[in-house]
Amino acid sequence: MIERDALRDFYDDYYNILDDVRLDEWPALFTEACIYRVIPRENFEAGYTLSTMYAESRGMLVDRVMGLTRTQMYAPRYYRRFPGPLRIVSAGAEDVRTRHNLLMVQTLIDKQTEIVLSAVCHDVVVVDEGRLRLRERIVVFDSEMIPNSLIYPA
Amino acid sequence: MIERDALRDFYDDYYNILDDVRLDEWPALFTEACIYRVIPRENFEAGYTLSTMYAESRGMLVDRVMGLTRTQMYAPRYYRRFPGPLRIVSAGAEDVRTRHNLLMVQTLIDKQTEIVLSAVCHDVVVVDEGRLRLRERIVVFDSEMIPNSLIYPA
Amino acid sequence: MIERDALRDFYDDYYNILDDVRLDEWPALFTEACIYRVIPRENFEAGYTLSTMYAESRGMLVDRVMGLTRTQMYAPRYYRRFPGPLRIVSAGAEDVRTRHNLLMVQTLIDKQTEIVLSAVCHDVVVVDEGRLRLRERIVVFDSEMIPNSLIYPA
Repeated sequence: MIERDALRDFYDDYYNILDDVRLDEWPALFTEACIYRVIPRENFEAGYTLSTMYAESRGMLVDRVMGLTRTQMYAPRYYRRFPGPLRIVSAGAEDVRTRHNLLMVQTLIDKQTEIVLSAVCHDVVVVDEGRLRLRERIVVFDSEMIPNSLIYPA
Repeated sequence: MIERDALRDFYDDYYNILDDVRLDEWPALFTEACIYRVIPRENFEAGYTLSTMYAESRGMLVDRVMGLTRTQMYAPRYYRRFPGPLRIVSAGAEDVRTRHNLLMVQTLIDKQTEIVLSAVCHDVVVVDEGRLRLRERIVVFDSEMIPNSLIYPA
Repeated sequence: MIERDALRDFYDDYYNILDDVRLDEWPALFTEACIYRVIPRENFEAGYTLSTMYAESRGMLVDRVMGLTRTQMYAPRYYRRFPGPLRIVSAGAEDVRTRHNLLMVQTLIDKQTEIVLSAVCHDVVVVDEGRLRLRERIVVFDSEMIPNSLIYPA
């Protein structure tokens, strides 16, 4: 059984790594075969799979990170992530389904901080090689528009 | 005694139900006789009771929900609620007073997510028919203006 | 050892005191000799110490509060603070290093609530005179601009 304390520590790591922009450490938080999807709520609820971001292996996440770090960004900015309370939806012997809200804010130099993502995350966390990893993460965001400014992962 | 874990699960349910717009399930989270009040901080601190929303029974909450679901909304929108840490103010044998901040954001189609409510919730949670329910919930929001866009409950 | 539950209660108090604008109670949450610093992320990461707010004793915090409460503010406003999950970075016998994100919102009368601070807090909490106190608190905010509107402490 995966304990709640271990989950809390896992998500602390997950969001610290992203907030600190240590993107090269991000793919290792997923299993080798995995689902990572960022999808508008409208599509998700209608059963469509058209997603803003999609990956089905750690290798695809690595590719994404390499693309990001090689690309010149249009303007320097900081992201910060505020996860809501973690809900354990169901727990098996070796995996646990969780759900939590996610507010992500963005600060551009000399600009006021603004909300760039309001979403709910449907995750599956498993034990893999002696540590916790995401086998599935679906980030469902409250908008129909593609957030162009969402350059980095959620 | 009501345990902290049970409270956490109760609030997880409460906010999930509202975020998912399962409004018909919302009144059952309150006792039959109850107080539900959404009130500006200015009024609350001055001791006035003039509220933006007010109900003193589960039946009044049911009426409110029926009014909401029958009314055509002006524009489709999503709400999402981000509760702050839960503070237990005092605990009796069968009831507990809690306090927590609440940030509520709204996303209209093709619009940027915005904050629609910054508030503190003063709640009384009790055991009723073998489950936790709110006997009192006072949502004190940081504004003098009536948030017209706050159509759904907090 | 400082327990996680004691830390949680300490931070509940800390943020309640600030949200309620009980500023005269704020300096007592720090040790007599202490570091309190609010600093832009750019400066912090570059190793500069130029800060928006700086104090190195409880007395300096008291001075700051007296300055605030004597000054007429330009416009009445409410602040509310939303701390993210608390991470324990390291724990000694009598002190603990913690880290958490902080979202601070501001509401002016008849205005929409806006984000005034997106930050990460690097704290050192110690046992002092039988209670928990901050020996160090560094609030690193995601902006290069000095938030003029940040009049009250974070």
